Amino acid sequence: MAQDPLVIFMPSGKRGRVPRGTTVLSAARRLGVDLDSVCGGRGICSKCQVEPAVGAFPKHGVTVTEDALSEWNAVEERYRQKRGLKPGRRLGCQARILGDVVIDVPPESQVHRQVVRKAATARAITMDPATRLLYVEVAEPDMHAPSGDFERLKEALAAQWQVDPSTIRPGPGVLARLQEALRKGDWAVTVALHRGHADELERILEIWPGYHEGPLYGLAIDVGSTTIAAHLTNLRDGQVVESAGVMNPQIRFGEDLMSRVSYAMMNPGGAAEMTAAVREAIDRLARELAEAARVERREILEAVFVCNPVMHHLLLGIDPVELGQAPFALATSGSVTLEARDLDLASLTPGARIYVLPCIAGHVGADAAAVALSEEPWNSDDMVLIVDVGTNAEIILGNHQRVLACSSPTGPAFEGAQISSGQRAAPGAIERVEIDPETKEPRFRVIGCDKWSDEEGFAEAVAATGITGICGSGIIEAVAEMRMAGIVDASGLIGPPEATGTPRCVPEGRTYAYVLHDGTGDGGPLIAVTQGDIRAIQLAKSALYAGARLLMDEMGVDRVDRIVLAGAFGAHISPKHAMVLGMIPDCPLERVTSAGNAAGTGARIALCNRAARAEIEARVRDIAKIETAVEPRFQEHFVAANAIPHATDPFPELRRVVTLPEPAFNAHAQEAGGARRRRRPPR
Amino acid sequence: MAQDPLVIFMPSGKRGRVPRGTTVLSAARRLGVDLDSVCGGRGICSKCQVEPAVGAFPKHGVTVTEDALSEWNAVEERYRQKRGLKPGRRLGCQARILGDVVIDVPPESQVHRQVVRKAATARAITMDPATRLLYVEVAEPDMHAPSGDFERLKEALAAQWQVDPSTIRPGPGVLARLQEALRKGDWAVTVALHRGHADELERILEIWPGYHEGPLYGLAIDVGSTTIAAHLTNLRDGQVVESAGVMNPQIRFGEDLMSRVSYAMMNPGGAAEMTAAVREAIDRLARELAEAARVERREILEAVFVCNPVMHHLLLGIDPVELGQAPFALATSGSVTLEARDLDLASLTPGARIYVLPCIAGHVGADAAAVALSEEPWNSDDMVLIVDVGTNAEIILGNHQRVLACSSPTGPAFEGAQISSGQRAAPGAIERVEIDPETKEPRFRVIGCDKWSDEEGFAEAVAATGITGICGSGIIEAVAEMRMAGIVDASGLIGPPEATGTPRCVPEGRTYAYVLHDGTGDGGPLIAVTQGDIRAIQLAKSALYAGARLLMDEMGVDRVDRIVLAGAFGAHISPKHAMVLGMIPDCPLERVTSAGNAAGTGARIALCNRAARAEIEARVRDIAKIETAVEPRFQEHFVAANAIPHATDPFPELRRVVTLPEPAFNAHAQEAGGARRRRRPPR
Repeated sequence: MAQDPLVIFMPSGKRGRVPRGTTVLSAARRLGVDLDSVCGGRGICSKCQVEPAVGAFPKHGVTVTEDALSEWNAVEERYRQKRGLKPGRRLGCQARILGDVVIDVPPESQVHRQVVRKAATARAITMDPATRLLYVEVAEPDMHAPSGDFERLKEALAAQWQVDPSTIRPGPGVLARLQEALRKGDWAVTVALHRGHADELERILEIWPGYHEGPLYGLAIDVGSTTIAAHLTNLRDGQVVESAGVMNPQIRFGEDLMSRVSYAMMNPGGAAEMTAAVREAIDRLARELAEAARVERREILEAVFVCNPVMHHLLLGIDPVELGQAPFALATSGSVTLEARDLDLASLTPGARIYVLPCIAGHVGADAAAVALSEEPWNSDDMVLIVDVGTNAEIILGNHQRVLACSSPTGPAFEGAQISSGQRAAPGAIERVEIDPETKEPRFRVIGCDKWSDEEGFAEAVAATGITGICGSGIIEAVAEMRMAGIVDASGLIGPPEATGTPRCVPEGRTYAYVLHDGTGDGGPLIAVTQGDIRAIQLAKSALYAGARLLMDEMGVDRVDRIVLAGAFGAHISPKHAMVLGMIPDCPLERVTSAGNAAGTGARIALCNRAARAEIEARVRDIAKIETAVEPRFQEHFVAANAIPHATDPFPELRRVVTLPEPAFNAHAQEAGGARRRRRPPR
Repeated sequence: MAQDPLVIFMPSGKRGRVPRGTTVLSAARRLGVDLDSVCGGRGICSKCQVEPAVGAFPKHGVTVTEDALSEWNAVEERYRQKRGLKPGRRLGCQARILGDVVIDVPPESQVHRQVVRKAATARAITMDPATRLLYVEVAEPDMHAPSGDFERLKEALAAQWQVDPSTIRPGPGVLARLQEALRKGDWAVTVALHRGHADELERILEIWPGYHEGPLYGLAIDVGSTTIAAHLTNLRDGQVVESAGVMNPQIRFGEDLMSRVSYAMMNPGGAAEMTAAVREAIDRLARELAEAARVERREILEAVFVCNPVMHHLLLGIDPVELGQAPFALATSGSVTLEARDLDLASLTPGARIYVLPCIAGHVGADAAAVALSEEPWNSDDMVLIVDVGTNAEIILGNHQRVLACSSPTGPAFEGAQISSGQRAAPGAIERVEIDPETKEPRFRVIGCDKWSDEEGFAEAVAATGITGICGSGIIEAVAEMRMAGIVDASGLIGPPEATGTPRCVPEGRTYAYVLHDGTGDGGPLIAVTQGDIRAIQLAKSALYAGARLLMDEMGVDRVDRIVLAGAFGAHISPKHAMVLGMIPDCPLERVTSAGNAAGTGARIALCNRAARAEIEARVRDIAKIETAVEPRFQEHFVAANAIPHATDPFPELRRVVTLPEPAFNAHAQEAGGARRRRRPPR
């Protein structure tokens, strides 16, 4: 008797002999090859498409003949005519193995495919969604052996999909819809089955009559103090089909986190008010996303949330009062698993599974955990510093040996608040600045306008928005450029026109301001960087730098190998300017990168990959937390970091590429009234 | 070195040697002895009271000296003074074992104690509640090793109560209340922990600051087509602290089950209307019970439901339409586990665990499963027939070898409906009847009156209610008595006065009626048993008997060893009269017993004993179901059972104690108009 044919699957390289006549899909299952199927091999779903190869494969030691697979059959022909099939493709459930064969599984036929992330430096996301679609044929009821429709559905899932029936649970409302779906689908249904990563229960979240193509969707949601960003994501290929953001309506109860905690403390029912406000905004946002993407409510079956601890507690309906005072105890630091109805999210299917990432500490939340999940410092050979800049900065330092984390109260200056001409990043805001070191003249770019201010046609191009103020990245670049142009000295003082040699330095009270743009002739604003602005930036950047230094002390290092700037804001900061300012420690400039919205990416990873949830839960337990608020060295580092870039740290890597003039302006006429009084980090 | 002391626990007889100085509680735990404790051995709860014995115990081979236990200590003295302690009792967590000792664990110190049921014939319920109270001391938060309060609570439960922390989940709202409870209780709390019987998860349903004494409560609820009965039960000792019943408000949508199914079919949204109505009634009933017993909402942590399939579906929000037509497919036949909020039961704590018993078949519901759980036919050596009489009769037949079940459509005649003078069992209704075989004169009793109608003072005693009609048990006794007095013949015909010799037989159209009571002189009703009434009773009893015979055929037996009458109605039926009528098969009369409200008892067993849930789930799968609606022999049995007691079955046991005259009245003037037309069981 001839030997059984050999089948080799690529790209996995898995191989084995199977009885002649075995379908490619069965062979894949037997050999543990990742080959998708929703219909279970009935020629309906076409998810199991494969590309058989023909010819000699000396590397594998086989030669594949034309008749290695059974002939193209009627099911395949019908599918090709109705929905199309790429040349060379076969349906794995139809093609039978008759001789030695090499089978290529294209990425879109793999459940656990890798999805390349947009940023060039980013790793791929491996798909491993918790929810999958399964087509199943259910036995009809028999009066003489009565059993419930649900029990027969469980038996069918066990027989056709090897799901342990004792682990299957109906999601909310599923029992109520089951009987109609079974009868409409003539005893065939497609179920969305969700497997918990902690309890291993298999929950039926939704049910459709007959074969349902999908895809299924999930939401990755970043609840920030200021904005809520949501990404509607296809759970099959991980692609974001629609993104949107809204203001966090809690802003009306307080701009920053601590004022919201205060609101909860001072107003009975205040926490519940804020909980209702944020849930309602999330629900509306989700509904808008679904409408824009033409996705039905019942196809949105999961949501993953990341947020800082105060947002986390308010989202979950927990009074955040303990987060406002030492020892900053979280109600729960672990991940939280819920259903959509627990958060009043009517725009999702009622049993949609909610996963909230774990928090790292009372000041270092699920958003920081998501950044860590995205950047994986525990897999880094380099000592990497990850900074997520916002109203609070979350700072992570580590490598494959050890990871540390803290948060630092930078305040809102980096977001343009508490800056004389500051504004949020919106059309009309100056976002980039250059100052000529010779002439001390500035040029800048404005959000919503594609020209620099000294380019031809700028005036016309900017007319649509006007020039309305300066945003966070703009003020950072402006101060750094002023420092490089010798307009500001290392202590942060703006020099007088006679010392700086530019009439743009104008007196303002007992100090000076540098005029970036004078729009008063056209009825517009005068946009200047004042001494008070520089003091506010110094406070913010000192807090950030001090936090990073504290982690470096704890780690026992005095330099880092690379720096990752995370957060939507991180994406807009110029690494050179950030370093000139002394926001971040010295490091080769080319090794400072932006991770974009790393918290959002972490949320997407947790959404698309079930195993990533278990991983981040385990990792956060291993991250050592440093509490800046009670660490005496934080104050020392904070004071030393006040200078630009720093009073004592030499910044050799920075000075290799940037020249920093060292004027020292007379302090006789210095200090705007307010700044000195609060040269302590706001808490 | 002396040998370790020997400790013997009674009544279990468990024994072993423990190191000198071990507390009695620790010794009990080590030896697997059932000794209760809520506070974990801190001398707070006193649940671990024991009775040490002194003297010689030759049976055990030990002599116990006075100093076998450590001396009475301050904790015990404080407890005794504050709350009292029976003489001879010690606290197991305080008394240390110093020498050989025999320790008696009184029933109230056992978790798994047996609770004797009220009925003399009934077995005891063994307590094994799914929810228990645990006092636990939680570590305070540490800023330098931040972790959530919930995570520290889990660690404490693991360390102090050996609960696997990975199985612990917070119930709805628990995270929101946790922080305040911990701080109010100075880092000690009592939690109500519920262990699932299927998923083994440990859910924290409630939390109290410091030590909380309890007890906890659960509801055993029987949702009948006509009435909803609920029993508020102490989960520590299984005692019912308060019971109440209300009318099922679904009656306004249809008196019987099939008319409610029709309502759902004919009216869009009709099923949802009925669901809302029954849930609201249950919620109100639960609130009233709690108020009457002065129990707080948050102390009601479980509810167990039993009901017939249509009530089951409507309770769960499932359209019952499939139950109205062959093949009578249930949406789910398995048990259903939910939370109180899933059923809109605001009167319980939101996460209170709901357990709905499994159904046996499309016509044999969770109520029948509860009857089976109460009566345990699978443990019977006798062949036992269990009959739960209501609008539908559920019938179970079996012994330790095999159990069968069916339902039979008796219709509402047994409840007094479709009877000319019929009424529900309420004050004023005739409930018991005797007819003198010589004089043919009746005497009767009326609900709400403690005298027979021929006793002195009856007229005064009955004045409060009047005599308003005849209820189900009354009509059964009346017809059976008429048969024994020769007023009715075996075919069910009422004889004319000239044949029966009593002027109480009066013409009514072409048939006769027997006047039980003529109140017309006082403006009251004339209460008579008409030929139509007898036909209605014959239809009902034939259906019941035919169902029982069908099961006996299937079992291959032509007699049963004993009969259990279940249901509230079963409690009021006189076995002799039921057998004369031919409702039930022949059997020694002393072996016909009433199980009272067996469905309610089954619900209480499932409420108090976690293992009973797994047992009934397994048992119902093994019960063979017979579908009477499609069984041709049912019609044959039904027709043969029309005679009183039966056309062919001889009833030897009955005839041993009862004489049945055998007149045969002329059929010339027979049959009231309506009766003949529907001599088929209503469906």
